[in-house]
Amino acid sequence: MTDNSEFSVIDRLFRPLAGLTSEARGLRDDVAVLPSDNTHDLVVTTDAMVEGVHFLSTDPLDKVAQKLLRVNLSDLAAKGAVPYGYQLLTAWPHGLPFEAKQTFAKGLKADQARFNVALFGGDTVSTPGPLMVSVTLFGRVAKGQTVARAGAKAGDRVLVSGPIGQGYLGLKVLQGEYPELAAEFKAELVDTYQLPQPRLDMADVVRANAHASMDISDGLVADTGHIAQASRVDIDIDLNRVPTSRAARAAMALGASVLDLISGGDDYQILCTASGERAKALCEAGFVDIGECFPAKSQGQVIVLSDGKPVEIENTGWVHS
Amino acid sequence: MTDNSEFSVIDRLFRPLAGLTSEARGLRDDVAVLPSDNTHDLVVTTDAMVEGVHFLSTDPLDKVAQKLLRVNLSDLAAKGAVPYGYQLLTAWPHGLPFEAKQTFAKGLKADQARFNVALFGGDTVSTPGPLMVSVTLFGRVAKGQTVARAGAKAGDRVLVSGPIGQGYLGLKVLQGEYPELAAEFKAELVDTYQLPQPRLDMADVVRANAHASMDISDGLVADTGHIAQASRVDIDIDLNRVPTSRAARAAMALGASVLDLISGGDDYQILCTASGERAKALCEAGFVDIGECFPAKSQGQVIVLSDGKPVEIENTGWVHS
Repeated sequence: MTDNSEFSVIDRLFRPLAGLTSEARGLRDDVAVLPSDNTHDLVVTTDAMVEGVHFLSTDPLDKVAQKLLRVNLSDLAAKGAVPYGYQLLTAWPHGLPFEAKQTFAKGLKADQARFNVALFGGDTVSTPGPLMVSVTLFGRVAKGQTVARAGAKAGDRVLVSGPIGQGYLGLKVLQGEYPELAAEFKAELVDTYQLPQPRLDMADVVRANAHASMDISDGLVADTGHIAQASRVDIDIDLNRVPTSRAARAAMALGASVLDLISGGDDYQILCTASGERAKALCEAGFVDIGECFPAKSQGQVIVLSDGKPVEIENTGWVHS
Repeated sequence: MTDNSEFSVIDRLFRPLAGLTSEARGLRDDVAVLPSDNTHDLVVTTDAMVEGVHFLSTDPLDKVAQKLLRVNLSDLAAKGAVPYGYQLLTAWPHGLPFEAKQTFAKGLKADQARFNVALFGGDTVSTPGPLMVSVTLFGRVAKGQTVARAGAKAGDRVLVSGPIGQGYLGLKVLQGEYPELAAEFKAELVDTYQLPQPRLDMADVVRANAHASMDISDGLVADTGHIAQASRVDIDIDLNRVPTSRAARAAMALGASVLDLISGGDDYQILCTASGERAKALCEAGFVDIGECFPAKSQGQVIVLSDGKPVEIENTGWVHS
């Protein structure tokens, strides 16, 4: 869930600080990978959320806590990892009542039980600014089996684990758009925005079959671009095959653009690539085939096709602002 | 560097979330301890800094970055750990110029080389609030050798690794107090506030000899209390033996109170306990003997003695506000 305008900061300032350590993977993945024991690696991911940027001031704090854990769990799922435990950082606005912090802890408690993780430690501070919370989540994977961003090969199929644009539309509904949408659709979309479902149910099949994998947080097109660049392949996405929900199609009938759905972000589905029997195994597990990898002409780029013709994408990813 | 007013949040809300996992140590230590490989444990600490709370808006950002690494490194030193690598979280205020971020990265680069750590990963976001930065730092210790907060025993000597109150006085000098202080003393105190020296030089001797250990961030009295409570011992500190620098004594001659020095925080010296030959070994390495542990009458408390008489401490620790 990185702010797009920050990619140059990462490229120019932080990548040199990671150097060539195998743990950092050149900051070109969503996780760091450390040894855990003789048979497992420790997978580490950090994601922060700022009030007014990554969640709304009106979002209930138990759901904010759950979303915080879930966006981190989503990274683990895409890497084929099993959740383990986490460090928590909370920066409470001065004067935030104890009851609000209690609500936040209630959300953590519910999702710790649901996803079998425990709090290991962290820090708690106060701030004159907005609420900011961050989790550094640990997961475990059999040694050497962490699925990278950089593994896509020419000829691979491109696969997603579920409907695209749910989170984006949920945010729009909360902001008052599509007032005519049926109440059940509104509830479904808002629920996906506030409480995304990390696809841990897919972690095993991804680890067993995917060449490259990541979770979709910045938007389908932007994150496909991240795999293309990391793997040095070009990728075609067939817009006609991108899965959407009935709720999303109802919103499109009311004016939502499919191009916004594929660049909207906050999906928390898994995007991966695989070929042959392995791609088939992923589809049998519920993945949808939406495109193909080709030898890169340059650094790796994404072309979105609609009815076989390239579509111009103005906004390739979600810029937090 | 936990906000004191947050201890009840940790006790009441977060401790139940840590449960009985061995990694979390009941949130009663400064670090989490995970397996790293068959011979080592991974020691994990998280510390955040907020502009206007933990550093001044006028502090240069390279020094802020260095202090951020160092307050985390200080935790590792007190635990007897060797630094390994870190996750970095930066929340940049909207519109912060690239040059400011570059200065911040320059500070990280300098201290990475000095302390032999690498950046492993993290997250970078933007915020409508003040600058906030956080590090989750990893260190390594031979399996089972991490020195706990909870190991102090009745009869142990209480030892500190160097002068107390330097950081507190440095902050006061930056805020314009003690204008008559000699320039060299001012520089020394400000330097310790802005660029504390994590006592990694003491990590080996602490790991080999200490029963309990932690770094002093909340103030000598408050952190002695943390060891007393975690270990269930009472502790007497002899104020006359608390080491101070020439600069601090000059500030005291100008009105600074020794009681403020021992409650001021931001020391980043190591506070530990040991008995017999082991206490002697620590003193030979440079530690100063300032007190003694006794069987706890209740939950563990600290008494500060001056010329053998108890001194009343109003403010036992630094409350960030």
